[in-house]
Amino acid sequence: MAKSALQIERAQYVPKTPASIACGTSLVEGKATQSVADQDDIKKLFPNTYGMPIVTFQKSDSPVKAAPINVGVILSGGQAPGGHNVISGIFDGLKSINPDSKLYGFLGGPGGLVDHKYVELTKDIIDEYRNTGGFDIIGSGRTKLEEVEQFDKGLEICNRLGIKALVIIGGDDSNTNACVLAEYYLARKSGIQVIGCPKTIDGDLKNEMIETSFGFDTATKVYSEVIGNIERDANSAKKYWHFIKLMGRSASHVTLECALQTQPNITLVGEEVEAKNQTLDDVVTYIANAVAARAAKGLNFGTVLVPEGLIEFIPAIKKLIAELNDMLAANQAEFDAVADDEKLNYVVAHLSATNAAIFKSLPTSVSRQLALERDPHGNVQVSLIETEQLLADMVGKKLATWKKEGKFVGKFATQHHFFGYEGRCAAPSNFDADYCYSLGRVASLLIVSGKTGYMASVRNTTKPADQWLAGGIPITAMMNMEKRNGKMKPVIQKALVDLNGGPFKFFASKRDEWAINTDYVYPGPIQYFGPSAVADRTTVTLQLEHQ
Amino acid sequence: MAKSALQIERAQYVPKTPASIACGTSLVEGKATQSVADQDDIKKLFPNTYGMPIVTFQKSDSPVKAAPINVGVILSGGQAPGGHNVISGIFDGLKSINPDSKLYGFLGGPGGLVDHKYVELTKDIIDEYRNTGGFDIIGSGRTKLEEVEQFDKGLEICNRLGIKALVIIGGDDSNTNACVLAEYYLARKSGIQVIGCPKTIDGDLKNEMIETSFGFDTATKVYSEVIGNIERDANSAKKYWHFIKLMGRSASHVTLECALQTQPNITLVGEEVEAKNQTLDDVVTYIANAVAARAAKGLNFGTVLVPEGLIEFIPAIKKLIAELNDMLAANQAEFDAVADDEKLNYVVAHLSATNAAIFKSLPTSVSRQLALERDPHGNVQVSLIETEQLLADMVGKKLATWKKEGKFVGKFATQHHFFGYEGRCAAPSNFDADYCYSLGRVASLLIVSGKTGYMASVRNTTKPADQWLAGGIPITAMMNMEKRNGKMKPVIQKALVDLNGGPFKFFASKRDEWAINTDYVYPGPIQYFGPSAVADRTTVTLQLEHQ
Repeated sequence: MAKSALQIERAQYVPKTPASIACGTSLVEGKATQSVADQDDIKKLFPNTYGMPIVTFQKSDSPVKAAPINVGVILSGGQAPGGHNVISGIFDGLKSINPDSKLYGFLGGPGGLVDHKYVELTKDIIDEYRNTGGFDIIGSGRTKLEEVEQFDKGLEICNRLGIKALVIIGGDDSNTNACVLAEYYLARKSGIQVIGCPKTIDGDLKNEMIETSFGFDTATKVYSEVIGNIERDANSAKKYWHFIKLMGRSASHVTLECALQTQPNITLVGEEVEAKNQTLDDVVTYIANAVAARAAKGLNFGTVLVPEGLIEFIPAIKKLIAELNDMLAANQAEFDAVADDEKLNYVVAHLSATNAAIFKSLPTSVSRQLALERDPHGNVQVSLIETEQLLADMVGKKLATWKKEGKFVGKFATQHHFFGYEGRCAAPSNFDADYCYSLGRVASLLIVSGKTGYMASVRNTTKPADQWLAGGIPITAMMNMEKRNGKMKPVIQKALVDLNGGPFKFFASKRDEWAINTDYVYPGPIQYFGPSAVADRTTVTLQLEHQ
Repeated sequence: MAKSALQIERAQYVPKTPASIACGTSLVEGKATQSVADQDDIKKLFPNTYGMPIVTFQKSDSPVKAAPINVGVILSGGQAPGGHNVISGIFDGLKSINPDSKLYGFLGGPGGLVDHKYVELTKDIIDEYRNTGGFDIIGSGRTKLEEVEQFDKGLEICNRLGIKALVIIGGDDSNTNACVLAEYYLARKSGIQVIGCPKTIDGDLKNEMIETSFGFDTATKVYSEVIGNIERDANSAKKYWHFIKLMGRSASHVTLECALQTQPNITLVGEEVEAKNQTLDDVVTYIANAVAARAAKGLNFGTVLVPEGLIEFIPAIKKLIAELNDMLAANQAEFDAVADDEKLNYVVAHLSATNAAIFKSLPTSVSRQLALERDPHGNVQVSLIETEQLLADMVGKKLATWKKEGKFVGKFATQHHFFGYEGRCAAPSNFDADYCYSLGRVASLLIVSGKTGYMASVRNTTKPADQWLAGGIPITAMMNMEKRNGKMKPVIQKALVDLNGGPFKFFASKRDEWAINTDYVYPGPIQYFGPSAVADRTTVTLQLEHQ
């Protein structure tokens, strides 16, 4: 494929790594760990991988050398900038340990392991993908590794290729499954190690030991670039309120980080909406009040950031969706037979009084979407709801009422945007390029150290890269028990926005000013060259979390 | 306002200028000009500003010095990256001629001149805005300067402030009006000069002497960045066709330039659709064929670029819209009285048979939009039509039919995007920063040379900036007569995509390969620092036009 000028220059970039793994390194074992909750349950489910110590790599004079090791790598789930650098880090790490080591890439995600689809990643291939975005080097996929048959199919191909370790690059669920696989392979004494790597632009895979998931830095910078441009447009044209929805269904980290970078007038945080038990009308009223306050100052423009998952964070709507899913599943044949223009009435008649009232209060476009557009599993497709447009419409209606009552004196015209795919495959920022490459190097060191059931860890990330701390965290230490599809399962605790954490508290202390004033900041696009103050800055979230 | 790290560093950038105006310069007059068409009519309408010579600035040893000059500047129409640099170029130019010169900015567009709203632009203000995007320094607006009363109100404020010249920064219509104003002020012997500057991200203000309008370079780079990221996502996930609409109603330059930068599978060019007299179904079939061809190769993903103005380029729909506008205007009261669910039938009954048939063939969402959502002038609001979604839906329906017939064997899932506001206020690329600043310097030189009715011109722009040619072009030389709102008017000829020009011909020679293969290019974001090959590249359009 033809390369852009930027790709050609960027291929030369040498990622920065922690000084402790740059040349020689030695592994230091810390204290035994416990899971974050439900220790007895987790211990019972992971008898072989529970309680292992945190490990740290320390600078040493002797370079790590060993017999050749064959490793398989898997990209799991949605794209995140930097995946290619994790892979090049593993590759370089393995080759430095022994030039005869081999790296295999399983194609199209975890399914490639089960279906035995793979490619050997040679130097030529790796060099094509250094410092680039995307997961196209081997593709990704959403197959979940959960069944023993899948594990055994994986074992078969690993044995055939002489693979001693698998690296699974994925989000919380994929890393949970990596640990289940590690436990199974250890119990079977198969000799195959499994190492996880923390990936997701959503930023919800983090904890005391994992400071951030890779991709979050780059993706939020791309979104903040275009949000800043839109803000500057709003402030130049002075005639539109821009409603901007941002990817991230289960947590609002992306939205919060973009807010910290760009200082829009309104930012909705799903976790707060849930904690305060707000209704859709509460949210709409909150926005409408800000619009009216700015209008009173002659400012008939603004920007609103909305997390993709907002609708599901509203407790009343969450309950409605849950009942809808159950009710439609229970009455599927009957519901399918109902005439199209009677379907909404059918739904109302079959819901509890509370939920029927909420359902009726929604704009028809949304109630139709909830009732009529279901996925192959029969669930309502919440992700199809254009929340940004829904809010803009509802705010508009409220303001029209207020206008009649004399409570609103301005104009209200809107534009709406949704950003997600725009950022998942951007070329990694210097931070993500360095962080990912380091994670890959660390994964190779965990492998040569014989570790399994660990997640590669690089910490101290608000400092320059040479001061970063490299090591591994037992995945079981991040787990608790949660209900999934009606069953209790061991899972890595998802990190939602902490309403008592630094990032949210800083935002909360500023938002009233930001709402009424025009305090926009225009970050501009990611710079891969130039002054370090521009090219190497981390996310505001990370800075505020580690002040 | 708080500044981002990039803004702080970027403030230091010193724009590059043509060597011929860097120190001393002298003006050389060329041959008399003629308008591009309708010479007799244009000459009659512009007796004082017709036929003036093209002028060029040539390097000289003596710096240009003169008595202080007061100048007013106006931003007109939609935002384009670099407007602030035009203003800083004018400011620096005037101050170099005489430090006592003053620059006034009229607020909120041409309306500021009429309403006497202005600010003196001091060094402190100018320094805050160097190399930044947006028009927020003085705001912009869409008031058209067309009436003698407006001209006289402008004269009044110019005389009061001692303003000897106005610089109007705008698109083709604004520059046409600048020339009408120049003619009027000259006829009145008011002593006030008017100079135009070529602005528009749409790229449709260009001709033999004006190589490009400013903002086109930056805006298309922002769009190409996110298109490239989406392409990489499509090629990683391999499950979606992305339909991407790009701003630009009256010409398809933006879409064509983005296609040249990113090589998507399908690119629609409005001018070609019109020239080939294609129907909506022709366009849908063209896309569906490409989807089916890729599906046959196992590639169930792709990217489609759609110019915002596509719908209006389809001759049959253009005629339908024209008849709809006339018919609804003639029957407004009667139509308003028709019940909502009868309105579409009313429209069908009152259109000619041909247009009624086309109207009925459209998806209901579109026919409703055309019939029911009209702007304050009673016209249908074509810009509200979500063409990208319309095409995705119609292609999906066609493929469903083909599937039953065995002509399509793949999957077809879509995502859609619209990019416009994301690019209009980006910080100007090095090219736009240099080009705009140079245009501003040139404007100040045209003023001190006593010129009026000229557009500032900087040519040879595919060469390094020191080799650029600086000068002025009589605006009348770009004019012809066109019908506007039923009347013949003198206007600057709009530059549509030339189907025989270098950019389109190159695209046409490649598009069959691009459609079937995955030949994506990922340009990445604008770089303001780093290697010149990355930071200083011009648009592909400009390169292919000036090979």
